[in-house]
Amino acid sequence: MSDYITVRGVLGTEVQRKRTKKGDAVAEFRLASSGDWLNRDTGEWVKGVTNWYTVQAFRGLAENLWRSLSKGDPVVVTGKLKLRQWELQDGRRGTSPEIDADSIGHDLRRGTAEFIKNWTAAP
Amino acid sequence: MSDYITVRGVLGTEVQRKRTKKGDAVAEFRLASSGDWLNRDTGEWVKGVTNWYTVQAFRGLAENLWRSLSKGDPVVVTGKLKLRQWELQDGRRGTSPEIDADSIGHDLRRGTAEFIKNWTAAP
Amino acid sequence: MSDYITVRGVLGTEVQRKRTKKGDAVAEFRLASSGDWLNRDTGEWVKGVTNWYTVQAFRGLAENLWRSLSKGDPVVVTGKLKLRQWELQDGRRGTSPEIDADSIGHDLRRGTAEFIKNWTAAP
Amino acid sequence: MSDYITVRGVLGTEVQRKRTKKGDAVAEFRLASSGDWLNRDTGEWVKGVTNWYTVQAFRGLAENLWRSLSKGDPVVVTGKLKLRQWELQDGRRGTSPEIDADSIGHDLRRGTAEFIKNWTAAP
Repeated sequence: MSDYITVRGVLGTEVQRKRTKKGDAVAEFRLASSGDWLNRDTGEWVKGVTNWYTVQAFRGLAENLWRSLSKGDPVVVTGKLKLRQWELQDGRRGTSPEIDADSIGHDLRRGTAEFIKNWTAAP
Repeated sequence: MSDYITVRGVLGTEVQRKRTKKGDAVAEFRLASSGDWLNRDTGEWVKGVTNWYTVQAFRGLAENLWRSLSKGDPVVVTGKLKLRQWELQDGRRGTSPEIDADSIGHDLRRGTAEFIKNWTAAP
Repeated sequence: MSDYITVRGVLGTEVQRKRTKKGDAVAEFRLASSGDWLNRDTGEWVKGVTNWYTVQAFRGLAENLWRSLSKGDPVVVTGKLKLRQWELQDGRRGTSPEIDADSIGHDLRRGTAEFIKNWTAAP
Repeated sequence: MSDYITVRGVLGTEVQRKRTKKGDAVAEFRLASSGDWLNRDTGEWVKGVTNWYTVQAFRGLAENLWRSLSKGDPVVVTGKLKLRQWELQDGRRGTSPEIDADSIGHDLRRGTAEFIKNWTAAP
């Protein structure tokens, strides 16, 4: 499927709680994915580009994010990338990278988690 | 990167605790990813192929999995797919699909999690 | 999207031409993806697991594969992984890894291609 | 692997031929991936966000792209996403989404290709 991506990163903000006009839950936060890499020849970490995304989730996933995630938490996010474009009056254009999340979990490479199931429906 | 995959599924076994000869922690479990899909014309779920994987993790990630995951937990797994082949004496061959996990998290589409960080090192 | 994968590999067979009962074109071939990797400390290639897949494609994509691919061609394949299970009478089970291809292209890391468009419809 | 992505899209520009200071070949082009989708209830295509990327490739892959790709060609691109940030003097920030390509092929869902191998080395 084109433009789907999986990102390991860290929450750069708290989770914002929003509602759609219909009243559906929306969760939104900023995610930073470090591009630093280990140079095996020297044993030192090299500075890379940090990718910043706005992550959005809806309904049941959004409500669980509200209750589970805090600024600084390491997470795994998988979903569809959307590169929204905007244009300034002077003609310069920019892009706002968003991920419309299919699912999100705490990154267990970085800690432990206690999980409470609240949805048993079909996949 | 060739052969990398992200899977949303459910643990079909408890996590096995193992050690490499060098003493490094290893975690191993079976993961089931349902291929059932919603037929939007009829509103009914259609039976699909369920993908079964053996998931392996090492060192810090393995130790956190030991303490965090139980049979039945829904998870997001991302890592490299390895299709190990074996051969019976009668000549028939089979394949054991494994995922060498980069990271794993509880699937927050299915519940809430309380997370305790235990690693603050570089990515 | 769970269980989607992108694989760089080489055709291990010619492309088989089949038809569904309805008459739709089907293309099928075996794909080998090498897991060999370069050890940067020694500068030598290390033997890894080779992943073997059966790749299937349908309709327009299938017809274009019939006319474009030969055994030995390096390709990039993206699609959904299906791990079909079978069981022997003695109770041993096996898995046949298939990729239901979204799209396929010659791997331009390994050669050049002359392309002729034959479909201009919506994505 | 974090931030890796596979995109099916169309070249929005010709391929630019560049060289690094060391003389290595570089290929660069703009890629458009349509987010339009088929509404199965109505049978009509719905307008979605079009993702625009700058794709970069190096050395052997770059040289083959120079000789194989033209504006308007449909392709499959797989590689690492880099979201480079820039800042205007008035403080507004923007992001330039780039893909550092692992490999690229013509999208055989959209046409046929004649391929000539020119690299037989290890993967």
